[in-house]
Amino acid sequence: MKEQRILELIEQKNYIDLKKELSEMNEVDVSEILNDLDSSVTLLVFRMLPKDMAVDVFSHFSPEQQAGIIHAVSDKELKYILDELFFDDMIDLIEEMPANIVNKILAHSTADERKLINQFLKYPAHSAGSLMTIEYVELKKNMTVQEALDHIKEFGLSKETIYTCYVTNKNRKLEGIVSLRKLVVSEGSKCIKEIIHEDVIYVETHDDQEEIANIFKRYGFMALPVVDKERRLTGIITFDDIMEVMEQEATEDFQIMAAMSPS
Amino acid sequence: MKEQRILELIEQKNYIDLKKELSEMNEVDVSEILNDLDSSVTLLVFRMLPKDMAVDVFSHFSPEQQAGIIHAVSDKELKYILDELFFDDMIDLIEEMPANIVNKILAHSTADERKLINQFLKYPAHSAGSLMTIEYVELKKNMTVQEALDHIKEFGLSKETIYTCYVTNKNRKLEGIVSLRKLVVSEGSKCIKEIIHEDVIYVETHDDQEEIANIFKRYGFMALPVVDKERRLTGIITFDDIMEVMEQEATEDFQIMAAMSPS
Repeated sequence: MKEQRILELIEQKNYIDLKKELSEMNEVDVSEILNDLDSSVTLLVFRMLPKDMAVDVFSHFSPEQQAGIIHAVSDKELKYILDELFFDDMIDLIEEMPANIVNKILAHSTADERKLINQFLKYPAHSAGSLMTIEYVELKKNMTVQEALDHIKEFGLSKETIYTCYVTNKNRKLEGIVSLRKLVVSEGSKCIKEIIHEDVIYVETHDDQEEIANIFKRYGFMALPVVDKERRLTGIITFDDIMEVMEQEATEDFQIMAAMSPS
Repeated sequence: MKEQRILELIEQKNYIDLKKELSEMNEVDVSEILNDLDSSVTLLVFRMLPKDMAVDVFSHFSPEQQAGIIHAVSDKELKYILDELFFDDMIDLIEEMPANIVNKILAHSTADERKLINQFLKYPAHSAGSLMTIEYVELKKNMTVQEALDHIKEFGLSKETIYTCYVTNKNRKLEGIVSLRKLVVSEGSKCIKEIIHEDVIYVETHDDQEEIANIFKRYGFMALPVVDKERRLTGIITFDDIMEVMEQEATEDFQIMAAMSPS
């Protein structure tokens, strides 16, 4: 097994092979292996990971390991982690951390970021607002397909999903969506206006997660836009977060049913 | 409500507005409305749908409505539906239809297609083989990024997902994956070899759907490749089909639990 191999390499202090093996693994698997180690060992191995992988691995750690890492790393390293973390993972992190660590995190945020974090912390649990992320690709109706693709090429790697792009007007109202699939197969000179899909299914920030899970199951969407009462785009929810919700809801239903059965 | 509006337009025989409204709706919603109507009315409205939408709507119909449509349409229309249907929907269709309709469907297939259909019908229920589809984008290691994008532009629209592309060698063995995201942000002159992700997580045709659902939940994948015993790529499973499985499995677990409780 891969886990066995990794643990052996750590034991043998064979950091060259360890680094190579880790860099080829999936982030979820790496985080699971490191999660069970002593925090000093975790930190040592964590620092060997390729930078872009490290943040992903970090987001899958238990709150205890995350706290240990934040406590131990330098300000520069912490800033890198916080900058690269997806916004929804950042909110989860702040919700889980003790006050002293939250303060350390907030000290690295700008005033604008703190305002946004505060806004997100106020959404009710199990609401669309608490599930959504702000990393999405925003396009304008009068861009051409080529301009849209250039925009994605420039900013795309830091977005959670680039496969559905959201078209907004100057007041940030949601006007429609365009899939990356459509962009890739369309002529570069075409206008977004010509290929936009305007009849979009969306949810509002206060809608409940069970209702949202049902929309995902019904339509098979990859992502769903979240708007405020004025239909301004405020975030998106991606299918992988909804799979977790489906799991949670099923477990909850079970527990209710188990509680009803005579013991 | 939209449904009310559609039913009124059908009642009023206002086909111009009906056609317009339907063409802007989501296929799942259209199919749900039509599914409850008399089969003669369904056929009438079904024929008004834009061609690319019609096949999607058809795939969401109940087996009874599907049988009614196949029975009533011309050979030319049937051929179009069958040609455009995703392969996994085609297999589902054949499994649900009575013998006389299956014969009508097979009469429209080539010898090669019939061979493939037979192979797929043999996969055990709840196995990877029974869930997978054969519509995926296949790339070669020595293609450039630009060649890959051109290939997707040419063939992409008929594929179920183009967001993960599969790299195979000349014996169709799976060598790795490349996401469309990576293709879009890479230089056109780069070689697939340079951006391929070789350490791929995959399943085998006979693996069980519950195990597959767990892999999707764990990693948040959009699609998962399915290989045979020789690691040759035989299909892919997409996340939307797995959401249905998760729902089924939860219901099954419920029923088992309910059966165990005293009535």
